[in-house]
Amino acid sequence: MKFIIDRNLFLKNLNNVLKAISSNTAIPILKGIKIDLSENTLTLTGSDTNISIKIDIPKNEDLHIESTGSIVLPARFFSEIIKKLPGKDFSFEVKDSFQTKIMSENSDFTINGLDADNYPKLPEITRESSFVISGKSFKEVISETVFAVANQENRPILNGVNFDFNPKEINAIATDSHRLSRRTLKLATGPAVATNLVIPGNSLIELSKIIADDDPQVTVIPGENQVLFKIANINFYTRLLEGSYPDTERLIPQEATTTVELDALTLARSLERVSLLAHESRNNVVKMYLNVEDQVIKLSGDSAEVGNVAEELAFDSLNGENLEISFNPDYLRDALRVSITDSIVIKFTKPLRPFVVVPKDSDEKFIQLITPVRTF
Amino acid sequence: MKFIIDRNLFLKNLNNVLKAISSNTAIPILKGIKIDLSENTLTLTGSDTNISIKIDIPKNEDLHIESTGSIVLPARFFSEIIKKLPGKDFSFEVKDSFQTKIMSENSDFTINGLDADNYPKLPEITRESSFVISGKSFKEVISETVFAVANQENRPILNGVNFDFNPKEINAIATDSHRLSRRTLKLATGPAVATNLVIPGNSLIELSKIIADDDPQVTVIPGENQVLFKIANINFYTRLLEGSYPDTERLIPQEATTTVELDALTLARSLERVSLLAHESRNNVVKMYLNVEDQVIKLSGDSAEVGNVAEELAFDSLNGENLEISFNPDYLRDALRVSITDSIVIKFTKPLRPFVVVPKDSDEKFIQLITPVRTF
Repeated sequence: MKFIIDRNLFLKNLNNVLKAISSNTAIPILKGIKIDLSENTLTLTGSDTNISIKIDIPKNEDLHIESTGSIVLPARFFSEIIKKLPGKDFSFEVKDSFQTKIMSENSDFTINGLDADNYPKLPEITRESSFVISGKSFKEVISETVFAVANQENRPILNGVNFDFNPKEINAIATDSHRLSRRTLKLATGPAVATNLVIPGNSLIELSKIIADDDPQVTVIPGENQVLFKIANINFYTRLLEGSYPDTERLIPQEATTTVELDALTLARSLERVSLLAHESRNNVVKMYLNVEDQVIKLSGDSAEVGNVAEELAFDSLNGENLEISFNPDYLRDALRVSITDSIVIKFTKPLRPFVVVPKDSDEKFIQLITPVRTF
Repeated sequence: MKFIIDRNLFLKNLNNVLKAISSNTAIPILKGIKIDLSENTLTLTGSDTNISIKIDIPKNEDLHIESTGSIVLPARFFSEIIKKLPGKDFSFEVKDSFQTKIMSENSDFTINGLDADNYPKLPEITRESSFVISGKSFKEVISETVFAVANQENRPILNGVNFDFNPKEINAIATDSHRLSRRTLKLATGPAVATNLVIPGNSLIELSKIIADDDPQVTVIPGENQVLFKIANINFYTRLLEGSYPDTERLIPQEATTTVELDALTLARSLERVSLLAHESRNNVVKMYLNVEDQVIKLSGDSAEVGNVAEELAFDSLNGENLEISFNPDYLRDALRVSITDSIVIKFTKPLRPFVVVPKDSDEKFIQLITPVRTF
């Protein structure tokens, strides 16, 4: 097995494969990167069993293939070497007993490799049904929902985002049972048949990093309990979460008794200050007082040990009934961070019923729900 | 106690005082910042007992003093608040039972303070002898030596840099007994009488951050077992290390049997690659082979587990006897990092005797010494 390759070309692809490789895996060979060389293609593979990334680099003027073969090399260490090699190109040759020689200009490394036959097989996904979506739209929907997934073991299905891919739109929902984010985005292309996939949040975060910002096409190929995303020469596999996602529709209040319209950034800054105190207290709660007659909104936080803070909040409009409500400021902060409009509308019903945050003056379907905290 | 101050003016000074405050101190009140207000001056004080910083902000158009007093506030938390306040100014007022009210625009904080009478007294230093030096020169000498101090408890004197301040130069020495850095820098101004101070490395690192890059004057006021540095309105106190610093003069070889001249950056890059393997092995050693007849220098590193690397090194000249020597690559890396010339000279004697790294074609007095490692 021998090839000569442009170092930057290799490094770009190597960095993408590294996203699937964890240094604290219980399976030693998965700390390695698998390198396969056929007559026409160099293939790099990494996996942490939850996600697997396989990248094909076809033979080209920057990749000269001399002889075929396979090897597994320690991933982090190998990538450190490639990053620091002195030359524009390097040669890579597997010798006896998996010893691998990497040469670039005056530098000459020999690395102990592992038998590629011992590397786990990737899941097979037969291309029965596949569809293509916009990478930009998919990335957007991920960032607008993934922060709301649960991170706990007791209800694994909530650790994923529930995607409904329809011919004309993506509908995505994530909830950790304290807050929920639901986003629907129009698609120029979608699957012919509606497809439901619950994809682990951690996988989506890595996938999102791999989808470049220039709106590449993403081909979605659902399998039995895996799904494969193809983006240019990258194959990204992730396991799916099994079980049925809870029906969240009934959680979202259809009416409001108090409605406030305000600037998201103004609220975020105020919340940040009030959170300073809330974060010092054990229950991490801020209070919001909405006084419709006086047209005043106050935010406050306190910690018995450290002190307290109160602010009057600027807003555009406030209608309905007076209200005093307590909530975890981090949930509202997360909701504001992904706001798609400068101004937002918050709709409350009762002090102990969830409230929703929606875009103002927008046809976009994006609803975020936050459950208040009982403080009395 | 009440004042109104420009937030940026306060923040700039606060950030400097925070450098002396440690959040894991065993003395709870030292987690706080002491704020004293006299009729003409606002004074901020922080201390971790090793270093103390006291900053005076005189009354001016950006600082309006209403009534005098003193308070101690939790430092990290207080600085977070000041950073996030909405307005250009803020007012600061101590009320009953040390409760402190901080107001800025619509934001209104109340923080529980502590009695300033319980804050430890700073050391008194009588200004018997003091001298002024260039901040730029002092900063330079610190960065060129402080990395070589020891970090161990068994010989505390080596945890400091040994400074000799003379009328015309600073002479600084640091060693951890494996490597040594000695720098002499000319001074335009210095003390009338030679002054020796052994200053803890950690203190010097913080002091260096406080000396701005625009070459401020630094007034040095040595005390009994403390020294005070005054930089503009900042008073920086540090304890001194007691005991006599070892005589290092005799350690530095006066002759060389093998001499090599080369580019510091070329060597640093090569060393970085070879270190990749050395760092994987237990003894962290690289080997250098200098062959004078063949005019070849080789660097190599190996780890039984991971593999090995060898490089030929480009150089300008190589003279004297052949040599094979092993050393810790991190010591040479550190020495190269602070090189004051692009090209350096390395002078060797025997495989187990220390070698020195000096600037090439320079009148500057800067010598770094590295002890090799026995590998056979």
